[in-house]
Amino acid sequence: MDKIKIIEVKQSIFQDNDKDAEKLRGELKEKKTFLLNLMSSPGGGKTTFLKALAPRLKDISMGVMEADIDSDVDAEAMKEAGIRTIQLHTGGMCHLDASMTRQGLEEFGTEGLDLVVLENVGNLVCPAEFDTGAVRNAVILSVPEGHDKPLKYPLMFQVAHALIINKIDTLPYFDFDLEKVKEYALMRNPNLKIFPISAKTGEGMDKVKEWLENEVKAWIS
Amino acid sequence: MDKIKIIEVKQSIFQDNDKDAEKLRGELKEKKTFLLNLMSSPGGGKTTFLKALAPRLKDISMGVMEADIDSDVDAEAMKEAGIRTIQLHTGGMCHLDASMTRQGLEEFGTEGLDLVVLENVGNLVCPAEFDTGAVRNAVILSVPEGHDKPLKYPLMFQVAHALIINKIDTLPYFDFDLEKVKEYALMRNPNLKIFPISAKTGEGMDKVKEWLENEVKAWIS
Repeated sequence: MDKIKIIEVKQSIFQDNDKDAEKLRGELKEKKTFLLNLMSSPGGGKTTFLKALAPRLKDISMGVMEADIDSDVDAEAMKEAGIRTIQLHTGGMCHLDASMTRQGLEEFGTEGLDLVVLENVGNLVCPAEFDTGAVRNAVILSVPEGHDKPLKYPLMFQVAHALIINKIDTLPYFDFDLEKVKEYALMRNPNLKIFPISAKTGEGMDKVKEWLENEVKAWIS
Repeated sequence: MDKIKIIEVKQSIFQDNDKDAEKLRGELKEKKTFLLNLMSSPGGGKTTFLKALAPRLKDISMGVMEADIDSDVDAEAMKEAGIRTIQLHTGGMCHLDASMTRQGLEEFGTEGLDLVVLENVGNLVCPAEFDTGAVRNAVILSVPEGHDKPLKYPLMFQVAHALIINKIDTLPYFDFDLEKVKEYALMRNPNLKIFPISAKTGEGMDKVKEWLENEVKAWIS
């Protein structure tokens, strides 16, 4: 198999990011490519989620852009799972903006892909502050992190369209209140779709897959 | 009990942070106050660790400055545990610099405290980029986050003096390789002290307490 392509993406300091993100969404619409911006804390389970998602997608094709400060461990994991992937390095930055995302998409090449997932840098703060140009934002919160996170990282839950609560197979081992986290998250964002899952066991994966497939089909049709 | 004091700290854009941090360390040395900068991902267990640490400290007095984007849930937890505390709000910033730390210390008042812990914003990226003026940096990495984190967040492990591996009571439920994480972390920083603990069960707490007490005593003597 080919070596993983690693791209150093650089933030543009001259552009208006919100405007640029809108422009990128327009370009994606024209190309019939759906971009999902997937965010979480470090170790929330983004990579494991994508590995669980890939074999469940029947009617749409997916590629993954892995963003990281350094290393290519996630892109390696994607490659091993047979998922088309590219590694973006942010050069120390803890987020991606629309310009960095566009650089990644151009190098990746989106031909033949209905869905591109941008696996953002593991972080609940900065990635929420920059519109990447994605059609939808999803945040993964994992059970071991605790149910108070929507109180502590408000913007992340405000900008997300979907909240994926991961590692629910470990609920017996942590003081995590599923009802409370839903209440706190909906307080931040009443329109949030909430999906409790275990990417490891597969529980709940079908529902989030269904949501995503419907979103992608609506966008590319 | 009194209400928790909440301070909005603001970043200085004019100062040279490294210089300012050195200056703050000098001031702390003069006042015989040891400042520990405690960092981790969201949900890594900083607050639980401090609650487990407090009753174990016999010869030194501790206060905690809780930094957060928003909310005061951690300061509330400290207050309930009978720990002297103050809440710092970063106004959306994902880190604290030396100037913000100084503002916090001035409002907190360090008289009678040998040790002040700055519980930094939950984040493995930005907090590592700014010297807060602390005497020592500690990072907590929790088992559910995975052992690959020193590969993905190199700077955090480079700037840390101590790595606290938390939630080891959950090792049976996660694919976490304790030897690998030590190897990766020491690759980043060969001088790193490593303490596997469970703040929940208390396992390993005495060793990290001993390290910290020795550091504090050396600083204030």
